[in-house]
Amino acid sequence: MQSFIPPRRTLMGPGPSDISPQVLQALSRPTIGHLDPLFIKMMDEVKELLKYAFQTENEFTIAVSAPGSAGMETCFVNLVEAGEKVLVCRNGVFGERMRQNVERCGGTAIVIDDKWGEPVSLDKVKQALDQHPDIAIVAFVHAETSTGVLSDARAISELARKHGCLTIVDAVTSLGGVPLLVDEWQLDAVYSGSQKCLSCTPGLSPVTFSNKAVEKMTSRKTPVQSWFLDQSLVLGYWSGEGKRSYHHTAPVNSLYALHEALLMLKNEGIEEAWSRHAHYHQELKQGLEALGIQFIVDEASRLPQLNAVYIPEGVDDVAIRSRLLNEYNLEIGAGLGDLAGKAWRIGLMGYAAKKENVTLCLKALSDVL
Amino acid sequence: MQSFIPPRRTLMGPGPSDISPQVLQALSRPTIGHLDPLFIKMMDEVKELLKYAFQTENEFTIAVSAPGSAGMETCFVNLVEAGEKVLVCRNGVFGERMRQNVERCGGTAIVIDDKWGEPVSLDKVKQALDQHPDIAIVAFVHAETSTGVLSDARAISELARKHGCLTIVDAVTSLGGVPLLVDEWQLDAVYSGSQKCLSCTPGLSPVTFSNKAVEKMTSRKTPVQSWFLDQSLVLGYWSGEGKRSYHHTAPVNSLYALHEALLMLKNEGIEEAWSRHAHYHQELKQGLEALGIQFIVDEASRLPQLNAVYIPEGVDDVAIRSRLLNEYNLEIGAGLGDLAGKAWRIGLMGYAAKKENVTLCLKALSDVL
Repeated sequence: MQSFIPPRRTLMGPGPSDISPQVLQALSRPTIGHLDPLFIKMMDEVKELLKYAFQTENEFTIAVSAPGSAGMETCFVNLVEAGEKVLVCRNGVFGERMRQNVERCGGTAIVIDDKWGEPVSLDKVKQALDQHPDIAIVAFVHAETSTGVLSDARAISELARKHGCLTIVDAVTSLGGVPLLVDEWQLDAVYSGSQKCLSCTPGLSPVTFSNKAVEKMTSRKTPVQSWFLDQSLVLGYWSGEGKRSYHHTAPVNSLYALHEALLMLKNEGIEEAWSRHAHYHQELKQGLEALGIQFIVDEASRLPQLNAVYIPEGVDDVAIRSRLLNEYNLEIGAGLGDLAGKAWRIGLMGYAAKKENVTLCLKALSDVL
Repeated sequence: MQSFIPPRRTLMGPGPSDISPQVLQALSRPTIGHLDPLFIKMMDEVKELLKYAFQTENEFTIAVSAPGSAGMETCFVNLVEAGEKVLVCRNGVFGERMRQNVERCGGTAIVIDDKWGEPVSLDKVKQALDQHPDIAIVAFVHAETSTGVLSDARAISELARKHGCLTIVDAVTSLGGVPLLVDEWQLDAVYSGSQKCLSCTPGLSPVTFSNKAVEKMTSRKTPVQSWFLDQSLVLGYWSGEGKRSYHHTAPVNSLYALHEALLMLKNEGIEEAWSRHAHYHQELKQGLEALGIQFIVDEASRLPQLNAVYIPEGVDDVAIRSRLLNEYNLEIGAGLGDLAGKAWRIGLMGYAAKKENVTLCLKALSDVL
């Protein structure tokens, strides 16, 4: 067995996305102790940078030491108590995963379904909230990674608040790629992933909790079922008081990388990052349409950073993706769930949203099709 | 805010331990997709290398995509069903954490206590098993990171089997540092951490499950309370069939590093690694005793890789550790829990178990004391 030397791929799937050399360099800096005063100071900076990325002043804004699906679980296990009703808006793989989370917490999921590729219907949300006045939480996916659709987080949040509900929001693919205004939209528990539009290595899940969410967490009647994800324990570890109570050993190097990736976002400016995603999406879209390739999602709710398109008729999904990977070192994503074999998902996330990637992808696709 | 440039520390605390430049280099190689065929092949190699490290043929041997405390929780949530009795042997911080895990799973913890710094008493285990014939699982810590004590995993496992119980074993600090023979000792669920004697970056938790443990997991009456840690879902992702069912996005770069760290262990040979830890422990011990520093743990059950010693009388704990850190770039560990302020924990883990570290530590301590 030998050391593993990966090739240099262009990553235009649903994540991990391309990673800047600066971030990879940060990743490999010398490890220091997770209770080292210098590391604690860096963790405080990560909190500040995450607040910027989430556009929030929420004090409880940290990175969970595990991938986005653990970030999802963090929100559910801390906020849902057994017997509570949660409205789950399901329009793709991750809405379904939310439902499973609710049930594993002993909650009752009230599910509303929208077609894959369509945004969450506000009418259905309203109707469900009217019908079940005891719903405590509304959970939905802001940017569905499985279909490339954007839902109206601001409007769903407004409906939820009108009914006295908290919101749990999946922002795994939206953070850094499209506007996500946690404070302005009054979202309560929002989780994301490091490996999408932040262009950091996979393995961390940024989360932020509003004061209302923290109140709910701290007034629970029962302990959180997960020790590792119990935020009342984690908060002591991430608290900005210069003191740290030991909880678990932080993934030190991964947090170096997240710090660097967030700093790059801050230096670019988040509005500029959103515009860049929108700009290269337009370039890609024009090129794809010139190749006769159709988008799954209507233009109005299409994610610029995740372009879900129908595989042209008669084209062999696996063969084409293999050729792109093996001949061009280019990864595009397969369809997931209901869309397996029917769709490709072309990511333009973070550092991957740039001219050379759009150019390579369009030329390579036109060559192999 | 600037890029974070850490100093180069010598890490002789309870982990993270010193990391070889080879491992840091592997960490920063270009990220590829987590479903890339080349990455899947590398994951298969990680499984093989972990089997070597654990000295097992267990097919279910993987790395959980989160730190050791999530590895602990993985074992408990998958193996303990509500209402089951688990014998928890508590002789330090991590035994207590096991108890909390049992209770959060809805299990009943039967706790036996041994003094901090003493190994688990076999008599107490036997007595508890005789007294509670309905105990289903025996959980204990092989190498207590909070006290530096080694317990007799082989003997505890034998007692457990005699009573028809499975074992859950914390091998966070033992794996790679002292003999741990999963198959020979017939241990059932064993978890570890990447950042101790494997000298990889923190953030991953190697786990291995015996066939008996897998049978128990697959014949559960209730779903696992955690979606993220549900091993029936994770196994599809790590299965060696060349197919992968998507579960979560693997921490790609961290797994590059683990692959490299495990390869280094394989190339050195695990017996040689155990001997190296024992050898430098002896050198450190002689030096510490020459400085009048006393060990907490009796020689017979002392961990070579984690030297817990009493802080000499009249010495200011924090001041000394700060001087070591700031003047010598040397980290040693503070006491944890009951031993806070009373003990230091000097690690000689993995890549840190070498002559220059012992020399630096002894000279620096003798200078500052």
